[in-house]
Amino acid sequence: MDHPELKNWSEAVEAELCAYFKERDANSHPLEEAMAYSVNAGGKRIRPLMVLMSIQAVGADAASFIDMAIAPELLHTYSLIHDDLPSMDNDDLRRGQPTNHIVYGEAMAILAGDGLHTESFEVLAKAGPAEVTALQRLELIKEFCVAIGRNGMVAGQAMDLQAETHPINLDQLHILHARKTGALIRFCARMGAILGNANDEQLKHITAFAEKLGLLFQVVDDLLDRKATAEQLGKTPGKDAAQGKATFPNLIGMNQTETLADELLNQCLEILEHSNLASHHLANLATFTRNRVF
Amino acid sequence: MDHPELKNWSEAVEAELCAYFKERDANSHPLEEAMAYSVNAGGKRIRPLMVLMSIQAVGADAASFIDMAIAPELLHTYSLIHDDLPSMDNDDLRRGQPTNHIVYGEAMAILAGDGLHTESFEVLAKAGPAEVTALQRLELIKEFCVAIGRNGMVAGQAMDLQAETHPINLDQLHILHARKTGALIRFCARMGAILGNANDEQLKHITAFAEKLGLLFQVVDDLLDRKATAEQLGKTPGKDAAQGKATFPNLIGMNQTETLADELLNQCLEILEHSNLASHHLANLATFTRNRVF
Repeated sequence: MDHPELKNWSEAVEAELCAYFKERDANSHPLEEAMAYSVNAGGKRIRPLMVLMSIQAVGADAASFIDMAIAPELLHTYSLIHDDLPSMDNDDLRRGQPTNHIVYGEAMAILAGDGLHTESFEVLAKAGPAEVTALQRLELIKEFCVAIGRNGMVAGQAMDLQAETHPINLDQLHILHARKTGALIRFCARMGAILGNANDEQLKHITAFAEKLGLLFQVVDDLLDRKATAEQLGKTPGKDAAQGKATFPNLIGMNQTETLADELLNQCLEILEHSNLASHHLANLATFTRNRVF
Repeated sequence: MDHPELKNWSEAVEAELCAYFKERDANSHPLEEAMAYSVNAGGKRIRPLMVLMSIQAVGADAASFIDMAIAPELLHTYSLIHDDLPSMDNDDLRRGQPTNHIVYGEAMAILAGDGLHTESFEVLAKAGPAEVTALQRLELIKEFCVAIGRNGMVAGQAMDLQAETHPINLDQLHILHARKTGALIRFCARMGAILGNANDEQLKHITAFAEKLGLLFQVVDDLLDRKATAEQLGKTPGKDAAQGKATFPNLIGMNQTETLADELLNQCLEILEHSNLASHHLANLATFTRNRVF
């Protein structure tokens, strides 16, 4: 990670995630081991960073919210574990390590995902500093449900499944990604803004920014699936392309996809420029998202 | 259902569950169809009834809470869908109908369960009358997480998985059930008490009652697995016994298990008798739980 500030926050998130499962008792069962395995397998931690950088962008101090910012990462990890299952994407490798079901078996992997799903709500309900009000937490939980539920992330995953047998067009691909990855990234941005007591104007700009960033993130994912090496990617590259999956390069070609990514980055930066946000935190995140190689 | 009052409440719950997925829009996707399929496949609806009878027992009116009382039933349905999967219990039949993955395929069944899991939180966060405070909702959500998460229901399912290959004793079986089914039933009772503004004494008695009832429920389940016909049960009877699963009849025999069920019912009724609760609502539920034949 190029930006020293982002790198520091990322390390703080990593430490928090690592500590999170250290609190297990001595009789800790294989379920918790399986949950911890995938959480601690690394990753870009984009979602907690999005929460924290949004807090900074509205002028609050993110430091006391790190334990709460991991909620969407726990949720994201559950979705990866279930996505990797044999009946879903059937992936053996994730972040350079064997996937959860390869290590713990399919049944325990399903339960580990289920456990992390619940855990993410528990973090939203309990973690963070005392000044977070019950009303704020409830607002976050409501938005979280919309982002990850039957009209959000899970709906996107269902669309993705169907797209394997029923090819979709570019408009539908945009809807798919807005649900599958966009909704949770949008939630993270709004979570930070709400926790940082953003005004309406700030919340509006951060939301618009996050919608572009979520799409940028996915477009770059599609590019990396084609360009990166297995070592960089931590999983088998080219798999989406080979499976004929709905991706931007499959629909509009590599060149146009690169151009789209550049345009989305510019749009992100433009939204920030015309906003009343302390925008360099979010700008760093957008630039990192465009330029990442894993 | 013998008791006319319970029957009325049960029908109100059924109507609510049926209406719940009617609100889908015209473009409703297969995911929502899969979610609705299992929710509308019937069942005893013990969990919503527990919520509603607890509200009545503390002297409040349950009628305005029916839309909120379905939350634990949505959660329960997710756990059944995942439990039935080929890599878990591998059941083809549930409540007399093909299980979710038989109808929609394994991948969609996993997602349908995931969607219902989130949905149950959304109901806790949003449904019910306006007088439910944000603090009450947050308290419910916290207790819900503990009941269903890595030290509750999901932990019980993980223990159950392991018990297939590592036989457990009677003490461990009690812990397994307290987690796998007991914790959610206990939550339902406390949910009703909290929504009905129970005093500390009432909450204490309702909690003690629910802990016994949860175990009674499981003991009767084990008995029915041996005694009931497939038609009554809506699934293949004798399967737990045949798989050498950890059950009360397998560990202490049928006669002692019948005696245990009678004792637990008596303990339930005794707790109610010495409480300051309007106890006939809960007594009906306990008697129904002991005498049910499906």
